[in-house]
Amino acid sequence: MPSTKTVTVTGGAGRIAYAFIPMVCSGQVFGKDTQIDLRLLDIEMSAEKLKGVALEINDCCYPLLNSLVATIDPKVAFQDCQVAVLLGGFPRMAGMERKDLTARNAKGMRHQGFALEQYASKDVKVLVVANPANTNALVAMQSAPSIPPANFSCLTRLDHERLRYFVAEFVNEARSAHNVEPGAPPTRPADVSGVAIWGNHSSTQVPFIDTASVRIGDTVHNVLAFLEGHPPAGTSGSVVAELVFRVQQRGAEIIKSQGASSGFSAADAIAKHLQDWLGPANEGAVFSMGIYSNGNPYGIPNELVYSFPCRQSSEGVVEIVPGLTISEKVQSQLDATSTELLAERRDADETIRDPGARLAESKL
Amino acid sequence: MPSTKTVTVTGGAGRIAYAFIPMVCSGQVFGKDTQIDLRLLDIEMSAEKLKGVALEINDCCYPLLNSLVATIDPKVAFQDCQVAVLLGGFPRMAGMERKDLTARNAKGMRHQGFALEQYASKDVKVLVVANPANTNALVAMQSAPSIPPANFSCLTRLDHERLRYFVAEFVNEARSAHNVEPGAPPTRPADVSGVAIWGNHSSTQVPFIDTASVRIGDTVHNVLAFLEGHPPAGTSGSVVAELVFRVQQRGAEIIKSQGASSGFSAADAIAKHLQDWLGPANEGAVFSMGIYSNGNPYGIPNELVYSFPCRQSSEGVVEIVPGLTISEKVQSQLDATSTELLAERRDADETIRDPGARLAESKL
Repeated sequence: MPSTKTVTVTGGAGRIAYAFIPMVCSGQVFGKDTQIDLRLLDIEMSAEKLKGVALEINDCCYPLLNSLVATIDPKVAFQDCQVAVLLGGFPRMAGMERKDLTARNAKGMRHQGFALEQYASKDVKVLVVANPANTNALVAMQSAPSIPPANFSCLTRLDHERLRYFVAEFVNEARSAHNVEPGAPPTRPADVSGVAIWGNHSSTQVPFIDTASVRIGDTVHNVLAFLEGHPPAGTSGSVVAELVFRVQQRGAEIIKSQGASSGFSAADAIAKHLQDWLGPANEGAVFSMGIYSNGNPYGIPNELVYSFPCRQSSEGVVEIVPGLTISEKVQSQLDATSTELLAERRDADETIRDPGARLAESKL
Repeated sequence: MPSTKTVTVTGGAGRIAYAFIPMVCSGQVFGKDTQIDLRLLDIEMSAEKLKGVALEINDCCYPLLNSLVATIDPKVAFQDCQVAVLLGGFPRMAGMERKDLTARNAKGMRHQGFALEQYASKDVKVLVVANPANTNALVAMQSAPSIPPANFSCLTRLDHERLRYFVAEFVNEARSAHNVEPGAPPTRPADVSGVAIWGNHSSTQVPFIDTASVRIGDTVHNVLAFLEGHPPAGTSGSVVAELVFRVQQRGAEIIKSQGASSGFSAADAIAKHLQDWLGPANEGAVFSMGIYSNGNPYGIPNELVYSFPCRQSSEGVVEIVPGLTISEKVQSQLDATSTELLAERRDADETIRDPGARLAESKL
């Protein structure tokens, strides 16, 4: 008997879901031996489009798809759910302040948290992608007190992968400018490891390369030392500042070109996040994910969902990479992103007003 | 040294490409041991969007992606190309007759054929998806005389998979209405085999289930006999006619729900088509693909690209499944779709006017 997993995707009619669903159904996310019970949720306004997505899923005749439900009812969508990927939220509209966005989404996330609390499996794993992802994850977690906080996370993996890409690009520019190992093939993102994203999935995020390494030919180099020793052509000032800036601007760059925000690259990052979180350990790999801050790791305030450099422990549990040296420069960036997250938490708390509201009083 | 494949996708900024590219780059199409040199082509109007797609590809850091080129220059896109997936074409506009569509696309396909002739590897495999897919494939083939006709095909696999889905749905309805093997799990599309699509990828296509079988519990049934013996509730008249109708209407149904034509289901069908055509044989599998008609197979006119029930021979070559019994009813349907294809070929020929035009005279 093959194993099965009940996977719920909210915002099921949206752009990221459209790219993510085939990855789930083809076995790319949970493996070729796991049958999927797929539950797609969206709001009433998108019900017809959601139906169209379900038709396409049927037309793929996925051997791993055990059952499919497309619904606008959270009760149906979250029933016995084992993995929830929360893509659905209110997008930021023109003229909307970040505070408004946080408030608007906090309400929606609170209701999704209530639904998880009531209907999902008690060991459900919840990945929040909808923005503001960190604070949304915190609100959902706080609204589902019987589910362990460690079962909630938010996506910062797309930023992480973008950072890897830019590091490879910078290293190639540096190699070309300084004629380093001209015989070796070009550096690829896959040759870059040990990068991380700290903090909020926002413009205050802290892309971190202090511990990153890159393989060029047969030699492994520390990225920071390499780039400082071989500044890429066209970079004036700090290479790190330039890298950080590019990562932070990448989302806007894609919207400008495509007229839409990241789709399949976000889906691919979600797949990687879930694999590293729930799948077999990728020996030695460091990955970024937003997790509950507890016990002041690296001096970060508690009770935030904060992105850290993570790894899978030998017991198969995600843990923060210990013992990293934090420079003064990075520390000030970590403080800034913490300050933003504390402000978001306040905004969300104000919106929810009565965090102790009983389930019976919710609008579910 | 791992193997590499140069894969060219036209219409690279379009909806199907957006779903297909991640499948290629993640190893789903050509396997986990094949590095990909990806070439994306689109027209100038879509250049900015194509650039955005390339950004997202970079952000996925695919370990199998050896190189990426996004271009509006066919010479660059088709240089040394080993697999070409032609998605780009003029869509049917409101008020446009099929003849206009054929004519408009024939010109574009002729130029793509010229480019393949001049720049591609001589053993390139070409899959045409842009509509009218069969006649487009014929035009591309005739415009590239130094590439063997067997290296051209067109997509009818999405219709094939839709047919499998509907057969499973009908069988489930029949089982429920007649209480057949109530203890066995529901029939899935993966339990259905031996279906096929004949002829044109259009409303005259001939979905064929005469040789189809379905596994229910531990027993394999002939689909036709089963459905005739256990008519599903709600089907009046011929079950086969109803099935055919549903398959033919599926594309329109999806456009109505989603406001856009099939995306990831088309990409999934393309992946399957390429796997069955170019990958290792899937023992005993019958699949549908549009191929060059040569030697009057089943009495079909020569020099058309026509969809047949196909299989991979023991030599790894695609061949038409021999020895099928064609009923009088099916024969008349095959004749009708042949008639349509002959008319399309005439329309295309008229458009091209001078099929012997020298390459030097082309507008490349």
